[in-house]
Amino acid sequence: MITTFGEIMLRLSPPGAYRIAQTDSFDAVYGGAEENVAIALASFGEHAAYVTKLPQNAVGDACLNSIRKWGVDTSHILRGGDRLGLYYLEKGASLRASAVTYDRKGSAFALSGIDDYDWNVILPQDDSESHKNTFFWTGITPAVGENLPGILLDALEVCRSRKIRTYCDLNYRAALWTPEKAGEVMRDLLPYTDVCVANEEHAELLFGITSAHSDRTDRLRDIAEQMCRTFGHSRVVMTMRRSLSADDNEVSAATLNAKTGEFTVSRTYPVHIIDRVGGGDALSAGIIYAEHNGFDESHLIEFASAANAFKHSVHGDALIASAAEIDAIAQAKSGEIRMKR
Amino acid sequence: MITTFGEIMLRLSPPGAYRIAQTDSFDAVYGGAEENVAIALASFGEHAAYVTKLPQNAVGDACLNSIRKWGVDTSHILRGGDRLGLYYLEKGASLRASAVTYDRKGSAFALSGIDDYDWNVILPQDDSESHKNTFFWTGITPAVGENLPGILLDALEVCRSRKIRTYCDLNYRAALWTPEKAGEVMRDLLPYTDVCVANEEHAELLFGITSAHSDRTDRLRDIAEQMCRTFGHSRVVMTMRRSLSADDNEVSAATLNAKTGEFTVSRTYPVHIIDRVGGGDALSAGIIYAEHNGFDESHLIEFASAANAFKHSVHGDALIASAAEIDAIAQAKSGEIRMKR
Amino acid sequence: MITTFGEIMLRLSPPGAYRIAQTDSFDAVYGGAEENVAIALASFGEHAAYVTKLPQNAVGDACLNSIRKWGVDTSHILRGGDRLGLYYLEKGASLRASAVTYDRKGSAFALSGIDDYDWNVILPQDDSESHKNTFFWTGITPAVGENLPGILLDALEVCRSRKIRTYCDLNYRAALWTPEKAGEVMRDLLPYTDVCVANEEHAELLFGITSAHSDRTDRLRDIAEQMCRTFGHSRVVMTMRRSLSADDNEVSAATLNAKTGEFTVSRTYPVHIIDRVGGGDALSAGIIYAEHNGFDESHLIEFASAANAFKHSVHGDALIASAAEIDAIAQAKSGEIRMKR
Amino acid sequence: MITTFGEIMLRLSPPGAYRIAQTDSFDAVYGGAEENVAIALASFGEHAAYVTKLPQNAVGDACLNSIRKWGVDTSHILRGGDRLGLYYLEKGASLRASAVTYDRKGSAFALSGIDDYDWNVILPQDDSESHKNTFFWTGITPAVGENLPGILLDALEVCRSRKIRTYCDLNYRAALWTPEKAGEVMRDLLPYTDVCVANEEHAELLFGITSAHSDRTDRLRDIAEQMCRTFGHSRVVMTMRRSLSADDNEVSAATLNAKTGEFTVSRTYPVHIIDRVGGGDALSAGIIYAEHNGFDESHLIEFASAANAFKHSVHGDALIASAAEIDAIAQAKSGEIRMKR
Amino acid sequence: MITTFGEIMLRLSPPGAYRIAQTDSFDAVYGGAEENVAIALASFGEHAAYVTKLPQNAVGDACLNSIRKWGVDTSHILRGGDRLGLYYLEKGASLRASAVTYDRKGSAFALSGIDDYDWNVILPQDDSESHKNTFFWTGITPAVGENLPGILLDALEVCRSRKIRTYCDLNYRAALWTPEKAGEVMRDLLPYTDVCVANEEHAELLFGITSAHSDRTDRLRDIAEQMCRTFGHSRVVMTMRRSLSADDNEVSAATLNAKTGEFTVSRTYPVHIIDRVGGGDALSAGIIYAEHNGFDESHLIEFASAANAFKHSVHGDALIASAAEIDAIAQAKSGEIRMKR
Amino acid sequence: MITTFGEIMLRLSPPGAYRIAQTDSFDAVYGGAEENVAIALASFGEHAAYVTKLPQNAVGDACLNSIRKWGVDTSHILRGGDRLGLYYLEKGASLRASAVTYDRKGSAFALSGIDDYDWNVILPQDDSESHKNTFFWTGITPAVGENLPGILLDALEVCRSRKIRTYCDLNYRAALWTPEKAGEVMRDLLPYTDVCVANEEHAELLFGITSAHSDRTDRLRDIAEQMCRTFGHSRVVMTMRRSLSADDNEVSAATLNAKTGEFTVSRTYPVHIIDRVGGGDALSAGIIYAEHNGFDESHLIEFASAANAFKHSVHGDALIASAAEIDAIAQAKSGEIRMKR
Repeated sequence: MITTFGEIMLRLSPPGAYRIAQTDSFDAVYGGAEENVAIALASFGEHAAYVTKLPQNAVGDACLNSIRKWGVDTSHILRGGDRLGLYYLEKGASLRASAVTYDRKGSAFALSGIDDYDWNVILPQDDSESHKNTFFWTGITPAVGENLPGILLDALEVCRSRKIRTYCDLNYRAALWTPEKAGEVMRDLLPYTDVCVANEEHAELLFGITSAHSDRTDRLRDIAEQMCRTFGHSRVVMTMRRSLSADDNEVSAATLNAKTGEFTVSRTYPVHIIDRVGGGDALSAGIIYAEHNGFDESHLIEFASAANAFKHSVHGDALIASAAEIDAIAQAKSGEIRMKR
Repeated sequence: MITTFGEIMLRLSPPGAYRIAQTDSFDAVYGGAEENVAIALASFGEHAAYVTKLPQNAVGDACLNSIRKWGVDTSHILRGGDRLGLYYLEKGASLRASAVTYDRKGSAFALSGIDDYDWNVILPQDDSESHKNTFFWTGITPAVGENLPGILLDALEVCRSRKIRTYCDLNYRAALWTPEKAGEVMRDLLPYTDVCVANEEHAELLFGITSAHSDRTDRLRDIAEQMCRTFGHSRVVMTMRRSLSADDNEVSAATLNAKTGEFTVSRTYPVHIIDRVGGGDALSAGIIYAEHNGFDESHLIEFASAANAFKHSVHGDALIASAAEIDAIAQAKSGEIRMKR
Repeated sequence: MITTFGEIMLRLSPPGAYRIAQTDSFDAVYGGAEENVAIALASFGEHAAYVTKLPQNAVGDACLNSIRKWGVDTSHILRGGDRLGLYYLEKGASLRASAVTYDRKGSAFALSGIDDYDWNVILPQDDSESHKNTFFWTGITPAVGENLPGILLDALEVCRSRKIRTYCDLNYRAALWTPEKAGEVMRDLLPYTDVCVANEEHAELLFGITSAHSDRTDRLRDIAEQMCRTFGHSRVVMTMRRSLSADDNEVSAATLNAKTGEFTVSRTYPVHIIDRVGGGDALSAGIIYAEHNGFDESHLIEFASAANAFKHSVHGDALIASAAEIDAIAQAKSGEIRMKR
Repeated sequence: MITTFGEIMLRLSPPGAYRIAQTDSFDAVYGGAEENVAIALASFGEHAAYVTKLPQNAVGDACLNSIRKWGVDTSHILRGGDRLGLYYLEKGASLRASAVTYDRKGSAFALSGIDDYDWNVILPQDDSESHKNTFFWTGITPAVGENLPGILLDALEVCRSRKIRTYCDLNYRAALWTPEKAGEVMRDLLPYTDVCVANEEHAELLFGITSAHSDRTDRLRDIAEQMCRTFGHSRVVMTMRRSLSADDNEVSAATLNAKTGEFTVSRTYPVHIIDRVGGGDALSAGIIYAEHNGFDESHLIEFASAANAFKHSVHGDALIASAAEIDAIAQAKSGEIRMKR
Repeated sequence: MITTFGEIMLRLSPPGAYRIAQTDSFDAVYGGAEENVAIALASFGEHAAYVTKLPQNAVGDACLNSIRKWGVDTSHILRGGDRLGLYYLEKGASLRASAVTYDRKGSAFALSGIDDYDWNVILPQDDSESHKNTFFWTGITPAVGENLPGILLDALEVCRSRKIRTYCDLNYRAALWTPEKAGEVMRDLLPYTDVCVANEEHAELLFGITSAHSDRTDRLRDIAEQMCRTFGHSRVVMTMRRSLSADDNEVSAATLNAKTGEFTVSRTYPVHIIDRVGGGDALSAGIIYAEHNGFDESHLIEFASAANAFKHSVHGDALIASAAEIDAIAQAKSGEIRMKR
Repeated sequence: MITTFGEIMLRLSPPGAYRIAQTDSFDAVYGGAEENVAIALASFGEHAAYVTKLPQNAVGDACLNSIRKWGVDTSHILRGGDRLGLYYLEKGASLRASAVTYDRKGSAFALSGIDDYDWNVILPQDDSESHKNTFFWTGITPAVGENLPGILLDALEVCRSRKIRTYCDLNYRAALWTPEKAGEVMRDLLPYTDVCVANEEHAELLFGITSAHSDRTDRLRDIAEQMCRTFGHSRVVMTMRRSLSADDNEVSAATLNAKTGEFTVSRTYPVHIIDRVGGGDALSAGIIYAEHNGFDESHLIEFASAANAFKHSVHGDALIASAAEIDAIAQAKSGEIRMKR
């Protein structure tokens, strides 16, 4: 069972490529990084639960329904507070980049109280299948409200005591806090985290972790090794994205297995973008699924990268796909889909 | 020139009669009571200006465009603050009533500072046409932020000094404040107001003004007379609505001219509802237009009621119609459209 | 075989009840009175042909396809000229009436040349089934272009020589010509017409035909008799509509059979309006169908009125319905659907 | 816990009032009588489970998601078979009635095997709360496939042995079987059923149960009493609908409590129709909810009728509403909403 | 005159790139390989007739209208049977492939009776223009119902006796039958076929026809020659497609003229995909049009390939384009549009 | 202050990539070359006025609103005449080019009277800021009506007398006049024009100005120099477009500063096309903005080209973007967005 914890927001986007000033309707999607991970895992057939706090009103109800729809366990979602956070997403096109206007302050989740979540009840008991019990969080959560770092620490301590495997996507958001503040808070939380997903830019920005290697593979391995040494991770996943335009990107990833020392780089997946939100979350779900199903390192990183790539072809924040669909991409020969080594 | 002042919000509605939990898009309209009055008056051909404060972001820009579109003077709109207030409107149908979920706290307008608005600059100078200079506000404005009662008082004092005619729609909103608080604040502001639009229920709730007459016309006249005596209004307009279902209502109004003592009741207009938001605002615009154009009492109250009725046939918050379209309804013989005396 | 002749236009309407200034898309329907008659008859299973002139461009092609779709014979449609006429229809709601903005000048059809149509080829040969050969036109056609009265006269003369039964819907359109001009032109054409559909208002406006009877049935019979005497019609159909609002009307009709002297009045059909364009055309199609199928007078006028009423429930200009669907309404007992005698 | 069992189909409707031949898109809703009951009960806050069989393909997946969304327990839904049954619904308007084209033969559910459902596992164990364990089925289910009567009998026998309260909506569908066949099969199944929902017409058609009373209330009571005597029901609910047009209906209901002999008639609720599918299912859900919550007879039948009425204002097959929303209608004074006694 | 024969289905697709589980509406298109050929030819200005069997219900009517719209002769379409076959098409994007869920069993066409089609009446009489009389079928038709191979054989024998030129697109569909069964049935039918459209993969799969040449042009020529020798075709067309992603493909074709021995390869057309269904059908229509209009081999294969390429830019199953539009692409110099030799 | 003058039309487009014959709705945008320039400049924060003539009807009103929305000064727009010109735009895709069907004859603007526009009032007075007063026109305007060349000459003479800087986009439209007629008229007007935007093809077609240089940069400089010598321009801007497909183009531009002799070429911007209408207008707005803000030659031509490129990513005719958004593209390093030198 995988438990994810974080904020879900209402995302409002003009249809297609329209600008906000041109639209008189908004496409509405409820989404958040951790919920995206839960949905992807539920789509893959895993038992995934999502924990958050939603306002007790019609919008909170609609949001709850949107989560249940995909088979995610919502039994520990709290209700209360004033509002659901939201953001306006204007999708980019060609050389016009996507633009986000946030309106998330004062949300029910951001104002979560330190005692709102009873982790002893929420998190699964340690049992014979404990290696499959998993807790997933991201660096967004401790940034959105003053009680959240403490709440997360409580959760992580229960995880540690119950041998629940923990995953964190670093996910630094400049709109929420400074690199200094983020670095300080994350330094407290990451030592409790088994698997960390990060990218080169944020490793430097938050922790000053850099590498002098000119070869990217060498550099990423070096950074991943430093992360493992610093925070005690058993796995670090480094993500890479190259933006050709608002319509076309290339994505790939690499992973360091701290136990074996293996460092494995995925192929580069070209993506034509339907919706780029949630690519990283799909990757995290892919890592978790791959570990749960005992994939080897190469299979693991290809599966996760394929999940990331596939997500770009799906509307909304979350990856809606079966594990078989992802695996078909992950295992495709280079000739079948255009990929670069 | 008519100056209106208040908050504008983004209204998000599921298409047609869908419930919030059923929709994956929202129709978006920017609207607010005072802006509705400005748009209706601009549509009638008057010079109408709207004063508010909008956030300096893409949503604020879109909102500004939506106001300019209708020919409203936006030259004194301020920019700043964090967010545009918003609300979710689920339109009712048959015996299911419309339902509103507010998310307006912390808006740029609500957090307006006491010195944000320089009324000496914003309001027109007293001149030979001074009897046509007009200031319109509603009872929503002093309820939305702690500085607003003071800001309004400043504006009303400038109006008094420049002989700008002032109109207020009482517009009590239970979601924003208690009747006691509303009564207290409004008692300070109404003495500066020449024309007041109210209904029987709110006159009692806020000021304890009631009448023992069993005949409704007698009762409304009595209440209007008390309002004039209490607050020194030169005109009071009493509005009436009978809700047959979420689809069908009947609207009418009456007015007391304090100078002449005339009390005039409009016919009752049956309305099949496309969008019931903003009916009262259309009525206020109708009163202002009728006064500006020297309509007699009967013509005035029919024009205002017809504006109210017509609004129910127009999507969005604001009345989009020419004065001629309204007058054709106002002056229709009973046989042409179904109306009751 | 029924041949209809007239202009078809592109109708552009804002979706639902939106006003033109509020929309950024238009619903598009191609339609015209005579084409509506052809489509309704084709839907009923009759062989119906439509004759018009369409521009040789993408819009003309799309229009042609829209006609073919319903099984109408388009083999004699001409191509040429500059443009397809069009109009903007803003649908009314409640006490807001529908509003039309025409843009039809200079259309391919309006500029038809006197020799464009070879009626000897277009119209069917007189044969054993001649009593079923039919030509339908309306009073719109001679109004739209200077050559059209002459073109119509040519057609009607071929009809006379071939014993093709002719029907005309008077259909006076004030936007196109004056009552005087209309009266003058129609006086020349109506003597060639076997069946005439008219209403009380137009009979007076064009021909000064009135009746002093206070009872409506008596008055309509009187007018119909005068029409028959004046123009030699074998049948006159008088249509009646009562507008309760833009959403609700009541329709009925009466017919005088000049041979038998029978005057038959239909029941009154209440209609909630989806689209009121083309009700009269549906009625004309109903008359033609009823005559072709030998319905008695009562059945004929109920079928035609039911076709009219049913049309109000169908989007677009044309009645899309089977004859069986119409007959079920026409023959319904009063209790089954609300109807007045 | 309430368990419902039956077929769910894909419903395809042209948008709004368009006819099938006019549309190039279909609104899609997954729905079925028993699922509607489950969704309404889940919306009311009850623990409701739905049992059916869905094909193992993308359409089956989408259907499953649509059920989960509303909080219905789907853990006993089977997967297999070839296809999901479907039907085309053309919504009526004014005097044009709604029209249905079925395409449901050969569905996964219709071809259910006699051993597909293990009722001992699916149905809850008898326990201290057994009076709240409930099984709901309708007369549609035994009609759709040859094994279904036997499957139902198995379920009903487990219910009897476990004291699970059973409800049946008679729901005779002429498109599926003859009255004779229906009567024969239902006579076998109804004796296992505690509560039966029926109408006057079907009681006569299937079982020849009629009453000579001219007063409708007397007649319905008589029929209900015969039903109780014949099949041993502890409660019979008689539904009434008066169709004014495709847009406007009136609904009401009455119930006989066989233990107390009380016969209670609800008020008549006028409904303007957004979507009339599922009104009866909402009523059944209302009965179950009212019994679970110990409502008295009058409250029970008003709540159920209000649920039925409210459903007509909601798009789709299922009632989406809170119990509080329904109760507000059920307990409204006559003046607040237009109702007839 | 070109007669085409086969099944038409309702195709239901989520809008744009949405997945089936994400949509609440489906875009609806009626289409089938042979109908697509008829529509393309009618769009080119040819007299094209389509023969099939449609259910006698509202969906069958709508389907019939959709065919008539494009000017296809529908006078020999049969009505009867239970249902119209349908399929769900989820359009792919980027590296997510399109996915199809079929629901076509038991359709009116699939259950066609051996005596349903009277080919002596349906097919045109042998006359001076006989070289332009054409019959088109595909390998889908004999796969969908047990009587279809026999029905096709009847048709082909009438064609042979009347010197009607016959075309077949091999179009093997793995969802309908095995390669063994397909090979066996097609071996009986192909000897009656003058022109065959195939690809390398299906030639091997069905008939074991392969070539050892490493150069693709040599290999295709070899295969085409074997096809001509084996089945007596006068022309074989080999199609090629390279899939770069779900959005971008490259298409080309080659043709062997058995009489002259000429083997001609078209340029390679890059296509950005709006809708890839029906590309091969457009190619077949292009071949027929080119032969009818006496194009030389090079012009023929470029026109057919351009028709195929152009189709990918048109929504729906069928190519909607004038012959001039296609020829402009076919004859474009390489610099005008990006093409490879 | 920038004053622009020309025709605005209603543009009707099928949604997305649909063909006109496939659509039953049109997306509606009001646009025209000169209005596009005004909107872009207003979006950049400049004071821009637009002068035209609109019909006094609902469509004219809607058009006026659409201009006001973007903050353009509409105080000198005339009302009168019969109709708003319109055109149908079928957007291309892949190798299918966009197609336009014009219907603009007889528009209010085209029939403008020689005395309709009082330029002494419309154009700003010469003042200390005179170097920022600007008049913009295009070669479309003198082509659309017989009085327009004279009206333009009047305007240009006032500009000369008031030292208002004048800009012209050559914009030759073959659908409106012959190259000979265009050359003759433009030769009269261009000597009054300070800045001219043109391309190589039109310079030759209208004025026979060509260059023998094989290098494109040399050739464009030569042509620009000839333009300056011939017409006395102080600046000439040469635009370049390479069409890879209907979806992908490359755009660039170059400018000759006649005073300094500098000839500067922009980078080449690859654009994926959302809407290619109005790219050139965005470029003109960019030139004006750059001159107003004192950009150097290189910054000027990059800003203008970036405006052109960015426009292709925005729906509708006009560039909706802030100057900062454009400048971010103009100043982007090559690595950030894919660009060619």
